[in-house]
Amino acid sequence: MKKNTFLYVFVFIALLFPSGLKAENDTLKYVDASTFELIGKGFSDTENLYERLPASLKDKTRPAVWSLSKNCSGLAIRFRTNSRIIAARWELTGDVTMNHFAPTGIKGVDLYCLEKGKWLFVNSGRPNGKVSRSVIVKNMEGKEKEYMLYLPLYDGVSRLEIGVEQAALIDNPRIDSPRKDKPVVVYGTSITQGGCASRAGMSYTSQLSRMLDRQFINLGFSGNGKLDLEVAEAMSGIDASCFVIDCVPNVSAGLMKEKYVRFYEVIREKNPETPVLMAENPRYTHMAFDQKTRAAVHEKNSLLKGFYQELKKKGDRHLYYLKAGGMTGDDLEGTVDGVHLTDLGFKRQAGHFYPALRKIIK
Amino acid sequence: MKKNTFLYVFVFIALLFPSGLKAENDTLKYVDASTFELIGKGFSDTENLYERLPASLKDKTRPAVWSLSKNCSGLAIRFRTNSRIIAARWELTGDVTMNHFAPTGIKGVDLYCLEKGKWLFVNSGRPNGKVSRSVIVKNMEGKEKEYMLYLPLYDGVSRLEIGVEQAALIDNPRIDSPRKDKPVVVYGTSITQGGCASRAGMSYTSQLSRMLDRQFINLGFSGNGKLDLEVAEAMSGIDASCFVIDCVPNVSAGLMKEKYVRFYEVIREKNPETPVLMAENPRYTHMAFDQKTRAAVHEKNSLLKGFYQELKKKGDRHLYYLKAGGMTGDDLEGTVDGVHLTDLGFKRQAGHFYPALRKIIK
Repeated sequence: MKKNTFLYVFVFIALLFPSGLKAENDTLKYVDASTFELIGKGFSDTENLYERLPASLKDKTRPAVWSLSKNCSGLAIRFRTNSRIIAARWELTGDVTMNHFAPTGIKGVDLYCLEKGKWLFVNSGRPNGKVSRSVIVKNMEGKEKEYMLYLPLYDGVSRLEIGVEQAALIDNPRIDSPRKDKPVVVYGTSITQGGCASRAGMSYTSQLSRMLDRQFINLGFSGNGKLDLEVAEAMSGIDASCFVIDCVPNVSAGLMKEKYVRFYEVIREKNPETPVLMAENPRYTHMAFDQKTRAAVHEKNSLLKGFYQELKKKGDRHLYYLKAGGMTGDDLEGTVDGVHLTDLGFKRQAGHFYPALRKIIK
Repeated sequence: MKKNTFLYVFVFIALLFPSGLKAENDTLKYVDASTFELIGKGFSDTENLYERLPASLKDKTRPAVWSLSKNCSGLAIRFRTNSRIIAARWELTGDVTMNHFAPTGIKGVDLYCLEKGKWLFVNSGRPNGKVSRSVIVKNMEGKEKEYMLYLPLYDGVSRLEIGVEQAALIDNPRIDSPRKDKPVVVYGTSITQGGCASRAGMSYTSQLSRMLDRQFINLGFSGNGKLDLEVAEAMSGIDASCFVIDCVPNVSAGLMKEKYVRFYEVIREKNPETPVLMAENPRYTHMAFDQKTRAAVHEKNSLLKGFYQELKKKGDRHLYYLKAGGMTGDDLEGTVDGVHLTDLGFKRQAGHFYPALRKIIK
């Protein structure tokens, strides 16, 4: 039994991890990522650098929301380098584990490179505990290129360093992509936050940011997109190209009646002409079998449709609506647990949002 | 700090896990799954029930291969029930953890239902340690339906029970689907074994089994698809509709020259007219950046093409070849780590194999 266990450990450690990385890692220089451009951040006045809500909300919002705002979903470091190797060293605040979510997605980092105006996946940095060190890519040409390193979706980062060859250049980007100007702000749930993408670049907001060449501010709070008005208040101060409200999965029909329109109004009052997109609850794949869930989702989406129609009737010419039909495909294969999307589901969801948002933000 | 940690734990446990499952779980009856049909198994004479190689190989093959043969990839339980709830209780042999792979895929179970001749994803059973108990679906109509429960991809199962309502019927299937007759046997690597699908039903062999309505025998051995001839010998005894050799990622060009054709011959000698499909090394997504990996993959695929052409010239009319081009899409987004496929990558890979296999097995 002992022998078997040892073999398992040996097989998995020796064969799934690329070899030879340790030696390379030791010869690199590591630069604090805080010296580079941080994108996807909605508020400059956060308690710590890699966080998503202003410090002023600390005692105003619910502890669960505050805690989740310290997860880094949507944040990314922009830099350029001519190094043939790129590595990362990062310290997590939580070292969170979940049973339906790959650690790379929860707490890894994810590198993209800009090639001919298109962001391409390079590789992920795999987490190995509270402090991780990972060679992300090696054997590159050594040409100067623009990079984007996504931070963890479901954990916090207290420190991040980027490793490159000793003699390599590493500096702030030359190119403004995804463009800073007037970001899209997305408020929502665990799905919005990126549960359960295999790596941070595959959440739907990350994908859309690359597809639309526009920064996205991810305000997804797992299980807690419950229409907290102080969050709407904070959001309303962002000079956005569009506000997306995508929180229906986290609210009951009762809570929707109580707060949904008010949440919208808080944003609208300060932003009379900014597009607002109301998104329906995605059709959970297990709704094909779970009748109670199916009924609940249909009820909430009808309610949402009603709010939308009423607000349009009152004259809001900048309000938009996104239907759930087709959002995650029609083969029921896009989720890991009926609700949370895999990379397959997120690819489809990004494709569903894309034409709507492209039209809205032009 | 302590308080923050507690909050994290609270938020993740309370909000990502559906509530009310414990009470339902307690009222169910659990039936040993060994009383139901087990599909995807190539050999009846295994050491324990849920394993993939015959006991006779225990002292003949390498310990790493033997150990991996105890992972359940490709195995599934077939049953029918009219229960409105379906649950599972299972004991793992390893309780394996990996940093780029969701626990649901490594060691969870995955339920599908046959609806109008099509297998549809119902939901996954999420692992919670060495022994797990999970309500997979509830609130169903209570009609008798055919189900398939996939076992873990990267862990062993020593015991599995299926939970249904006390008064419900649960029995062996009435319908032979995926058809038992002449399975497809696939020999290969970690990718073949299903790394890194979010759940067992998304490995490419599981998907193809549903798409082609045919049982697949998964002989993927993570990091160890190294052309072991005793494995070819065992495979050659299966009355297959097709043998797929998909192990190039695990072998060096040197090892390919030494053993690839011999491995093929061992199968061919006993099966002179059975189709054999040689699959190229998938184009790893990080090959766009890692020049050394790109060169190595191209070298091995050229070598493979050479073997194929030579064997065809010698007169094998039942030999087929699958090119890597387009196998995992052209946007580089289909892997979690450059190599191992996500559900997005596996969906594409299954779609790439499908027309080739459909033609071969008719």
